Amino acid sequence: MQKPSLPSSKDKTIIVFSGDLNKVIAAFIIANGALSMGRKVSMFFTFWGLNALKKEKKPANIKKNFIEKMFDFMLPRGSKKLALSKMNFSGFGPVLIRKIMKDHNIASVEELIKTALSNGAKLIACQMTMDLMGIKKEELIEGVEIGGVATFLEAVENSDATLFI
Amino acid sequence: MQKPSLPSSKDKTIIVFSGDLNKVIAAFIIANGALSMGRKVSMFFTFWGLNALKKEKKPANIKKNFIEKMFDFMLPRGSKKLALSKMNFSGFGPVLIRKIMKDHNIASVEELIKTALSNGAKLIACQMTMDLMGIKKEELIEGVEIGGVATFLEAVENSDATLFI
Amino acid sequence: MQKPSLPSSKDKTIIVFSGDLNKVIAAFIIANGALSMGRKVSMFFTFWGLNALKKEKKPANIKKNFIEKMFDFMLPRGSKKLALSKMNFSGFGPVLIRKIMKDHNIASVEELIKTALSNGAKLIACQMTMDLMGIKKEELIEGVEIGGVATFLEAVENSDATLFI
Repeated sequence: MQKPSLPSSKDKTIIVFSGDLNKVIAAFIIANGALSMGRKVSMFFTFWGLNALKKEKKPANIKKNFIEKMFDFMLPRGSKKLALSKMNFSGFGPVLIRKIMKDHNIASVEELIKTALSNGAKLIACQMTMDLMGIKKEELIEGVEIGGVATFLEAVENSDATLFI
Repeated sequence: MQKPSLPSSKDKTIIVFSGDLNKVIAAFIIANGALSMGRKVSMFFTFWGLNALKKEKKPANIKKNFIEKMFDFMLPRGSKKLALSKMNFSGFGPVLIRKIMKDHNIASVEELIKTALSNGAKLIACQMTMDLMGIKKEELIEGVEIGGVATFLEAVENSDATLFI
Repeated sequence: MQKPSLPSSKDKTIIVFSGDLNKVIAAFIIANGALSMGRKVSMFFTFWGLNALKKEKKPANIKKNFIEKMFDFMLPRGSKKLALSKMNFSGFGPVLIRKIMKDHNIASVEELIKTALSNGAKLIACQMTMDLMGIKKEELIEGVEIGGVATFLEAVENSDATLFI
């Protein structure tokens, strides 16, 4: 007699809504921990979270309208520009966190992102946020996919845990 | 031989703790996505999240004590008054987000709430928050239920994913 | 014929990232609700959340380096010093919340923590955060364990719901 096959996915889904440096770090530490245990991980970046996936330098020849330019000017470009939710001190806080992470041999957020990608994490940029803020695919780091709420919910239903960070 | 019936609920539970406009939008976009896939959705509004469920106009004849009046004066009344977690700019940020959502044919938060209710979402106001802040049932929009942590946990245990937003 | 045993754990895992008084209160109200229903609860305290687990008085004879002293000076010591995410008013907001919680016979956060511990909740302090901020085990209240991301993920995979607060 056959055992029934149980729905036993241990995949994880993480929605990264926040663009705070320490929340993005927390998201990737959890993701990389799960990947190292052999779990599939989908990370869905929406609203401020999307800033973490921007390339450090904006590609040339990207055209934006007035409002898109405003967002462009005001939002941080890439993981190196993310701020802290507390104790930001005009940018000194993130410098401090980065220094002590390095002193304690903890990977930087850029390394954490690279590790996640090379271990197979799916990084998905929210289509609606891109539309709203006028962010173009060429502005995002290599390896990022684009998806909507249906993509997100499909990942959620294949996961045993979903975190909203 | 009968197949065993597996616990396969795909319901979703969302706890809306934040009253930030963009987090409330995210909560309802996820909720409406799940509803359109035929899932049951319970949304539990607590602390600042409860502001999203207030009617735009306070009903007449509601009596509040001094502390309740203070909360009443200081907290936003209804979804049209919610602020952004970042870039609020004394209320200009939300105006901007609302404008670009409209420009991109994305439903306003008021429409998102209406859609959720008419598609069967349960919107539950946290009893304890109402007691603490002196919010009366008559101040909340039609269709909202009231419940406590037990109501919340029952929904959680019938769901395959719970988000704390 | 035997029924197959289904994976039916109803344990809960809560990651407390935030150190905001009202989010910590929400976390413990959910935890204590689940404990009272007979569920096992693991709470994992990371980044600012760890402040909630500090003893009110720093034990004597703890040596810290310069950066650790800076964190020590700037971060709140224990649950009585936590601030609100909104309406903090230089500390008046938390006093108000505490007063109205008392007026409504709701347990203080210190009582909520004690109840959780005595009902068997596992309170786990994040090793990495302790390392980064130079927080020593002797600074944390009695009954707290220390763990890393693997401890967290193990709890997650034994739970039917995980909240990131």
